[in-house]
Amino acid sequence: MSARKIKLTIEYDGAGFSGWQVQPGVRTVQGDLEAAFASLARRDTRVHGAGRTDAGVHALGQVAHSETDLTLPVEKLRAALNARLDDDVFIVSAEDVGADFNARFDAVSRSYAYLMGFTESPLWRGRRWLVKGAMDRDAMETALVPFAGVIDCSSFCLTGSEPKHHRCRIDRISLEWSSEHGEMLVLRIEADRFLRGMVRSIVGTLVEIGRGRISAESIQEIIDARDRSRAGPTVPPWGLYLERIEYEREA
Amino acid sequence: MSARKIKLTIEYDGAGFSGWQVQPGVRTVQGDLEAAFASLARRDTRVHGAGRTDAGVHALGQVAHSETDLTLPVEKLRAALNARLDDDVFIVSAEDVGADFNARFDAVSRSYAYLMGFTESPLWRGRRWLVKGAMDRDAMETALVPFAGVIDCSSFCLTGSEPKHHRCRIDRISLEWSSEHGEMLVLRIEADRFLRGMVRSIVGTLVEIGRGRISAESIQEIIDARDRSRAGPTVPPWGLYLERIEYEREA
Repeated sequence: MSARKIKLTIEYDGAGFSGWQVQPGVRTVQGDLEAAFASLARRDTRVHGAGRTDAGVHALGQVAHSETDLTLPVEKLRAALNARLDDDVFIVSAEDVGADFNARFDAVSRSYAYLMGFTESPLWRGRRWLVKGAMDRDAMETALVPFAGVIDCSSFCLTGSEPKHHRCRIDRISLEWSSEHGEMLVLRIEADRFLRGMVRSIVGTLVEIGRGRISAESIQEIIDARDRSRAGPTVPPWGLYLERIEYEREA
Repeated sequence: MSARKIKLTIEYDGAGFSGWQVQPGVRTVQGDLEAAFASLARRDTRVHGAGRTDAGVHALGQVAHSETDLTLPVEKLRAALNARLDDDVFIVSAEDVGADFNARFDAVSRSYAYLMGFTESPLWRGRRWLVKGAMDRDAMETALVPFAGVIDCSSFCLTGSEPKHHRCRIDRISLEWSSEHGEMLVLRIEADRFLRGMVRSIVGTLVEIGRGRISAESIQEIIDARDRSRAGPTVPPWGLYLERIEYEREA
């Protein structure tokens, strides 16, 4: 008999976690979810995420799957797990899925947002990165153009991670300016996959362009160089949100 | 020689404060601001707010005035005060004003927002009130109608406060629904003055109407009764934001 498989959609405030992935001796989202399952099922349970988020990174719609022998209706299971989780992580939805569902390998795209504020704000602290100085909006918009389609993102990949290849299919990248709560800038990017530190390196590069320290025209060279040292710095994790993971439509 | 007078606009996260007003033995926004002035000026300094906010209530644009002998340019003064404040309170702007300016008595209107969420959210915890159950939107909209113009708000005033009168001129009241980050509802209200607990009592009453426990038509009776016991409960402070205080345009 194959075990029941559950798909979970999870929101978390990254501030209190050393990232997604289980690591000994530190608090992680995966670790807390596995502990919640273990407490409920009274047996070790693995929770498999669609992707790792770094320490401090938030998620609105992380996705994971898990196998379980629990027979509770899925909404009761969700409630029972949430009752075992602290208030900085919450299972937004849970559904029964087929035995072949895999949160990581079945994902067809992932969407991240990076929030920047230009004014200090007690109510946004730990929620957006405070950027100092004026930005050249046109230069930043111009620099988005080369980020379309399948590109090699080696220049935006943190060293230390060793993916098999660095090609990413970027489906969407945009900058949205708002002034509802102080001047604010949001980068949104959707791609089939993300390399470690990729969004934060792209943002760091765009901000250098906005400040005039890198020219908008040189972005193509930076991409072509496939060299992390050519790009801008990696900006802090607390502005980053994993917004959504898309799966193939059900047949 | 009359002392220099400064107008401050202040943002704060209410979670860490026992409200605006100085009270012995607890942390308050006014207390922290006065301590920052005292540390800078090396003398006791009073900071006079436009109005009090209760424990836990947030502010995006609280206004206060203070007299000081400090001669720093106002932007340097603001920076020096902010350097002496914790990161949950921030002086957004500071300006020199005439000796007759009074943050409280010169205010012509105040605007509050109350944020409600219908789904639990780690990223919104302490920032909006989690409301359970479905709401009848039409009934809630209908119930806004009597809150226009000068009305007696006795039914929405926390007992224990004893204002001279209970008349408030409500200039604007609205409900905005959004679903950008889970279902969310924002009540915005602008008035010349607010009684203690007034926004939170109005919200509590509207939610009872939304749930069908009070009929939308009875809101006029509740107002006319001038009796706090007729209205709905006072909802929690962490959904409430003092958004803005307006002053007469400069001549």
